[in-house]
Amino acid sequence: MSLRIIATGGTFDKHYDEIEGKLAFDSGHLPHVIRRARMTVPVQLEELPLLDSLDMNDADRQRILASCLRADEPGIIVVHGTDTMKETAEVLGAAQLPKTIVLTGAMIPYEVKNSDALFNFGFACGVAQVLPPGVYIAMNARVFPWDKVRKNRAAGLFE
Amino acid sequence: MSLRIIATGGTFDKHYDEIEGKLAFDSGHLPHVIRRARMTVPVQLEELPLLDSLDMNDADRQRILASCLRADEPGIIVVHGTDTMKETAEVLGAAQLPKTIVLTGAMIPYEVKNSDALFNFGFACGVAQVLPPGVYIAMNARVFPWDKVRKNRAAGLFE
Amino acid sequence: MSLRIIATGGTFDKHYDEIEGKLAFDSGHLPHVIRRARMTVPVQLEELPLLDSLDMNDADRQRILASCLRADEPGIIVVHGTDTMKETAEVLGAAQLPKTIVLTGAMIPYEVKNSDALFNFGFACGVAQVLPPGVYIAMNARVFPWDKVRKNRAAGLFE
Amino acid sequence: MSLRIIATGGTFDKHYDEIEGKLAFDSGHLPHVIRRARMTVPVQLEELPLLDSLDMNDADRQRILASCLRADEPGIIVVHGTDTMKETAEVLGAAQLPKTIVLTGAMIPYEVKNSDALFNFGFACGVAQVLPPGVYIAMNARVFPWDKVRKNRAAGLFE
Repeated sequence: MSLRIIATGGTFDKHYDEIEGKLAFDSGHLPHVIRRARMTVPVQLEELPLLDSLDMNDADRQRILASCLRADEPGIIVVHGTDTMKETAEVLGAAQLPKTIVLTGAMIPYEVKNSDALFNFGFACGVAQVLPPGVYIAMNARVFPWDKVRKNRAAGLFE
Repeated sequence: MSLRIIATGGTFDKHYDEIEGKLAFDSGHLPHVIRRARMTVPVQLEELPLLDSLDMNDADRQRILASCLRADEPGIIVVHGTDTMKETAEVLGAAQLPKTIVLTGAMIPYEVKNSDALFNFGFACGVAQVLPPGVYIAMNARVFPWDKVRKNRAAGLFE
Repeated sequence: MSLRIIATGGTFDKHYDEIEGKLAFDSGHLPHVIRRARMTVPVQLEELPLLDSLDMNDADRQRILASCLRADEPGIIVVHGTDTMKETAEVLGAAQLPKTIVLTGAMIPYEVKNSDALFNFGFACGVAQVLPPGVYIAMNARVFPWDKVRKNRAAGLFE
Repeated sequence: MSLRIIATGGTFDKHYDEIEGKLAFDSGHLPHVIRRARMTVPVQLEELPLLDSLDMNDADRQRILASCLRADEPGIIVVHGTDTMKETAEVLGAAQLPKTIVLTGAMIPYEVKNSDALFNFGFACGVAQVLPPGVYIAMNARVFPWDKVRKNRAAGLFE
């Protein structure tokens, strides 16, 4: 089993810019995260433009779909912002690829105290190797099929 | 799907004792880890005596087996030291319980920089919900059946 | 020698709000920081309204001055945003109190990776016990008299 | 004012060795710590053999003294284990150098959660610029002259 990790930004990958005094994107955290996880499963990282998912448009989602189409790996993890994760999952789900595609992200950036990013990424790396082909969202230690999930923004949870 | 987490110690849960100047066990980290993961899947934490897995004997492994037997949950994660994880997996595997039991741990303690603990725990929480009944070791982003794994101590990896 | 710590907010004390997806103020970090530092010097923490220093007005600065006036301790540390730290230092400096008042803060929030907050706070706790009465800014491992300092915003440094 | 940092090991600089499963010395943390602190004061780092201070002998202390003698900087910070910090301070104190020498260390390693290392280092960098020549121990947010201090090992504090 081999995995492709597609980084697209989102809260997971935000970085504190000390000159501007706000969270933004810089070089992504996933190369470090993959080393930290001591993964021995074959893994290929592909970094797309890192975006806040509220700023994603149709072309951005088509680019993610194109990466999934091109991928040789049977398991794909898409690291994505949570706000429009469902919209991207719908685009990927409609394509009915014969691959296991798992979208995940984080409520707190990887580099901020108490972040859920590393847990979520580990969770996604696990289920992407075991679930049958399909498109899934993995958050809050649960797996949701792409067409049976919504984000409860007030609670900050998927359900 | 509901999960039982059985804490048994190991590197994952070691704590730096500043008076003695070494790593030891104190109160476990898993209550904090579970909150941090923002898990909404039903989860029950059971803390057994926290031990270095090199100090575990047969009675300790029987106690873990007894906890698995009593558990109502279909998915069980055993947080365990890596040095004798395979020995405990053999005891649990021989019992052929109709449950999905996943042993995991860490090469670096949860509270030490660059720890793999949170990743491994997330990974285990994922596969424990999806794999068929059986006993597995989940480390290095891979799942191993209990009877097809060994720890390469020189490299610090499972294979 | 005893110290008073006056928390006023700033980058040091910002907290990631996972529902809003941005940095804001919640309960301050200083009670935790003081325990972490294992301080045995007598220390009194006073938490004023936590503000981004760009949002501070004259009344806010007068409130900080009033706290300094009332303080029994000979050494005072004011944890403050860096953007208008100099303006507050000028208000405190003009009052010519017979106390050693040290303003410090952080370029990266305490709870974000690679933060300078704990270093700066330690530095300020040191010089506040040793410098003669006066008003100082302590940043970048340097002490500046209140009337001989400016923030270089492009570089994110005091000089 | 310029500073020399002399690294000699101690709890501050211990690193978790994941193959051996214990804390040991590897490359030191101070180059990273100095960058993290965004120090603009001129600083020179000198790394001596990194040792647990319980393993230090007379030759080790003479080597530290020799480094202090050779140093051009008026302020020197010696990062040292806490267990025999006082013994090294006595050797340095007896030499009566016309420099400000501050020994500091940590109760919890820099890379372990809740470490006091960064605070203590910041504190020492502050007082080393302000105190008159002499030899001092800086721990627990206090400055002690070298001949008026002891470590209370049961409490893990200097007094």
